[in-house]
Amino acid sequence: MKQNRIIRNVHIVTPLGNEARRGADMAKVAHFEKGIIVIVDGMIEFAGDEKDCPAELLALHTYEYTDAGGRVAIPGIVDSHTHLVFGGYRPDEFSWRLKGDTYMSIMERGGGIQSTVNATRGCTAEYMAEKADWFLRRMSEMGVTTVEAKSGYGLDLATERRQLEAIRMLAEREDAALNIVSTFLGAHAVPTEYKGRTAEYVDFLIAEMLPEFRGLARCCDVFCEKNVFEIEDSRRLLKAAREQGYALKLHADEIVTLGGAELAAELGALSADHLLHVSDEGVKRMAEAGVVATLLPLTAFALKEPYAPARKFIEAGGAVALATDLNPGSCFSGSIPLTIALACIYMQMTIEETITALTLNGAAALGMAADTGSLERGKRGDVAILEFDNINYLPYYVGMNCVATTIHDGRVVWQAPQ
Amino acid sequence: MKQNRIIRNVHIVTPLGNEARRGADMAKVAHFEKGIIVIVDGMIEFAGDEKDCPAELLALHTYEYTDAGGRVAIPGIVDSHTHLVFGGYRPDEFSWRLKGDTYMSIMERGGGIQSTVNATRGCTAEYMAEKADWFLRRMSEMGVTTVEAKSGYGLDLATERRQLEAIRMLAEREDAALNIVSTFLGAHAVPTEYKGRTAEYVDFLIAEMLPEFRGLARCCDVFCEKNVFEIEDSRRLLKAAREQGYALKLHADEIVTLGGAELAAELGALSADHLLHVSDEGVKRMAEAGVVATLLPLTAFALKEPYAPARKFIEAGGAVALATDLNPGSCFSGSIPLTIALACIYMQMTIEETITALTLNGAAALGMAADTGSLERGKRGDVAILEFDNINYLPYYVGMNCVATTIHDGRVVWQAPQ
Repeated sequence: MKQNRIIRNVHIVTPLGNEARRGADMAKVAHFEKGIIVIVDGMIEFAGDEKDCPAELLALHTYEYTDAGGRVAIPGIVDSHTHLVFGGYRPDEFSWRLKGDTYMSIMERGGGIQSTVNATRGCTAEYMAEKADWFLRRMSEMGVTTVEAKSGYGLDLATERRQLEAIRMLAEREDAALNIVSTFLGAHAVPTEYKGRTAEYVDFLIAEMLPEFRGLARCCDVFCEKNVFEIEDSRRLLKAAREQGYALKLHADEIVTLGGAELAAELGALSADHLLHVSDEGVKRMAEAGVVATLLPLTAFALKEPYAPARKFIEAGGAVALATDLNPGSCFSGSIPLTIALACIYMQMTIEETITALTLNGAAALGMAADTGSLERGKRGDVAILEFDNINYLPYYVGMNCVATTIHDGRVVWQAPQ
Repeated sequence: MKQNRIIRNVHIVTPLGNEARRGADMAKVAHFEKGIIVIVDGMIEFAGDEKDCPAELLALHTYEYTDAGGRVAIPGIVDSHTHLVFGGYRPDEFSWRLKGDTYMSIMERGGGIQSTVNATRGCTAEYMAEKADWFLRRMSEMGVTTVEAKSGYGLDLATERRQLEAIRMLAEREDAALNIVSTFLGAHAVPTEYKGRTAEYVDFLIAEMLPEFRGLARCCDVFCEKNVFEIEDSRRLLKAAREQGYALKLHADEIVTLGGAELAAELGALSADHLLHVSDEGVKRMAEAGVVATLLPLTAFALKEPYAPARKFIEAGGAVALATDLNPGSCFSGSIPLTIALACIYMQMTIEETITALTLNGAAALGMAADTGSLERGKRGDVAILEFDNINYLPYYVGMNCVATTIHDGRVVWQAPQ
C-alpha cells in the first residue's frame, strides 16, 4: 500500500546519494531546517527546503498530510543484518553464559546454534512468520523501514526453504510496515549430519541449495570463521553464489583474525559483517574495494567483547553500516536506540556518521542504495520523524526510543502514543 | 483510582518482606508458577498459588480480570533515584562531551548543572509537571509504578518550591499511573549567587528551605562530593534535616572516594547512591547499618565510567537497589531494560538480585517497603506482567522492553500493543 503524503514543517537530516558514503563523507549529512517532503505513490518526489518545492507538484495530486511540528526527520532506518526468523528461544543459555559457563559447556547442555536449528526444523513457515512479525512491529516503532532477514537455522533443504518462505510471506503482506530483504545463510554452521565433513556440506550447498533459492533470496552469506567455514570453503561457496546471481555478504573476523575482510574485498561482496578482529590490511582492502563494513555493536555489548574498530574503517576511507544482529543466541535484541548509544559513546562515531550508517550505508550493504536510505527524489517514501528538533537527542536520550512517527512507502505505519 | 482486580494464570516472581533484602537473600525470590493475585481497593489481599487462595475472597467482591496467560508477573518497578522535573535539555552538551570536551570547558560554554538551573528558574510548576508527565508515561510502559523525583534545579527558595509543587501536582493526579515520591535536593550544587560561600548556602538551606518544605518532600538528599558539599557540610545539613523529620539520602562517592558511604551509615540514611568510588570500609559500614546502596548504572554507561561494585555490597551482606538517575545532564535516560542489561551483564548481578534491587530494595531506599515493592498481602496492587513466562528473558532480550502490562493500584495503566 503506497500513499501520497506531504510531510511539512520538518527539519530534514539525511545523507545524500545512491551509494554508500565513505570516510569523511559519512559525516556530511544535509540539513533542511524548514523542509518539506513530498511523497507520490510511495516514492519521494521532493525533499528539501520548502521554498524550493515546485508549487505545481503540490497541486498535481491529493495528499495525506503530516505536520512534523519542526521536529527532525531522518530516512527510515535500514537494519541490514538480522536473523529474524527462527524457532525457539534461548534465555536459559544466556543466563548460563552470564554465570560464566563456557561455550563448550553450553553446547554440551544442549545450547548453541544447533538448539535453534533443532527448534526451527520443527516449525512451519506460517508459525515462523507470525513469530517474526512480533519483532517487526517493535522494529517499526524504532523507525526501521527496511530489514534484512537471514535463513541459516535449517541447514537442510526443506527448513532453509521454509525460513525463506516465511520471510517472503512477511515481505509480501499487503500491509507490511517494512521492506524485507532475504539472505540465504545455509553456511551458518555445519549441521550435525555433516560433522567433520565441512567440504561435503559446502558441495551440497553449492549443488543443491543455491540453485533452489535463486529468486527467493537476494544475497548469500557465510559464517567465515576458524573451525566453521574457513577461507577456502567460504571462497568456493561465495564464488558459486556469485555465478548464480546472488549478491554476497560475509560474517567475517568476528572471533579471530582469519582474513574474512580480505576475502570480502577480493570477491566484491556487498558487505563484511561483525569484524571485531579485522586486520589493518583487511580494513584497507575493504575500503579500497568499496565493501561496506557492517558493525553490530549490540552483539559485542551482549557478549562483553570489544567493539569493532569503526574509526579505523572511516579513517581508511571505508563505509560503515550499523545493524542489530537480532538473533536468539548471541544477541537477542533489535534495539536501535542502544545501537546508537554504543556507536556514539563506545565506538567514537559522531551522530552524523551514525545516521548515515543506519540508513544509506545500510541500504548499500543490501545493494539497495539506488532507491532506499536517504530523503531525496527517487527514493522510497520511508521516513522516521523524531520526538525532537535536534539530532543530538539520538545519543543523548540514552537507550530510549526517539521516534515519534514511522512512515513506509508514504504510509504512517507507527505513531508514538501522545 | 483504586480497583479490585484478579490476575490469574500468572507465574508470580517476587522478593518477600517489608524491608530491604540483604546479601544472599537478594537472590531468594519466591516463585508461584500457577499463581493468582487478588487486589481489593488497590491493595493486594492474596498473591500465591491459586490452590491456596481462599474461595470466600473471590466471592467477597466484584473484580476486573486479567489473564496473564502463564506469563511472569513481578512487582511494579520502583525507580528510586530520578531528577524528573527540570527546565530545558542539554543534548548539545552531551555531543560536546562525546567529542572529548572536558567538564570545565563545557561549564565555560554555558553547560553543566547551572544551565539547567537557569532554565528551571524560568519555568512554571505547571509547565514542569507537563514536561515530566511525558517521561512518566514512558516509565509506565517499562513497568515502573513508583518513582522518586528530586528537586535541585532551583537552588533558590521559589524555584525549589515550584519543582516540589510540580512533583506534588503529578502525585495528586486522579489518574496518576505511578506513585510519586519527592525528595528535596537543594544541596545539588552551590548556586552562582553563593560561589565560594558553601557553608553560608548550607546555613540558608537549613534555616530557610528545610522548614519550608516539610510535608512537601519526604526525603532530603545532598550531592556529597569533593569541592561541592564535602563531608562536614553534608553532615550538618543532613542532621538538621533529620531533626526536621526528613528521611535522608546521599549522592555519595560518585567521582572520588570521599567517605559519603561512611557518612550515610553514621546518620542512618535510607540510601547512599552512585558509589562508583566507595571505599571497602564504606561498603562494610553501609551493610552493617542497613543503608541501601542505590546503584545507577545508566549514568556510568553514559559517562563511560566503571560500574559501581554491586557484588562487593552483596557479598558484604548489604542491600543493593538499582535506579535510573534520569536527569538532563549526565544521564538522560529512564531505561529500565538497559539498567537490567547493565546489572546482569556488566555488574555480575543475577536476574533474581536485579529484580529485588528494582522492586523491594528500591522501595526500602524510599522508606516504603512496608506497603510497596513485593507481591504479597498488604502491599499496593502494583504489578508488571512480562511478555514472557521466564525471568531469564529480562537480561536476554537485551535493552528491549519485556513488559506487556503495567498495573498500579489494581488498575491497568499500560498495555503493550499486540
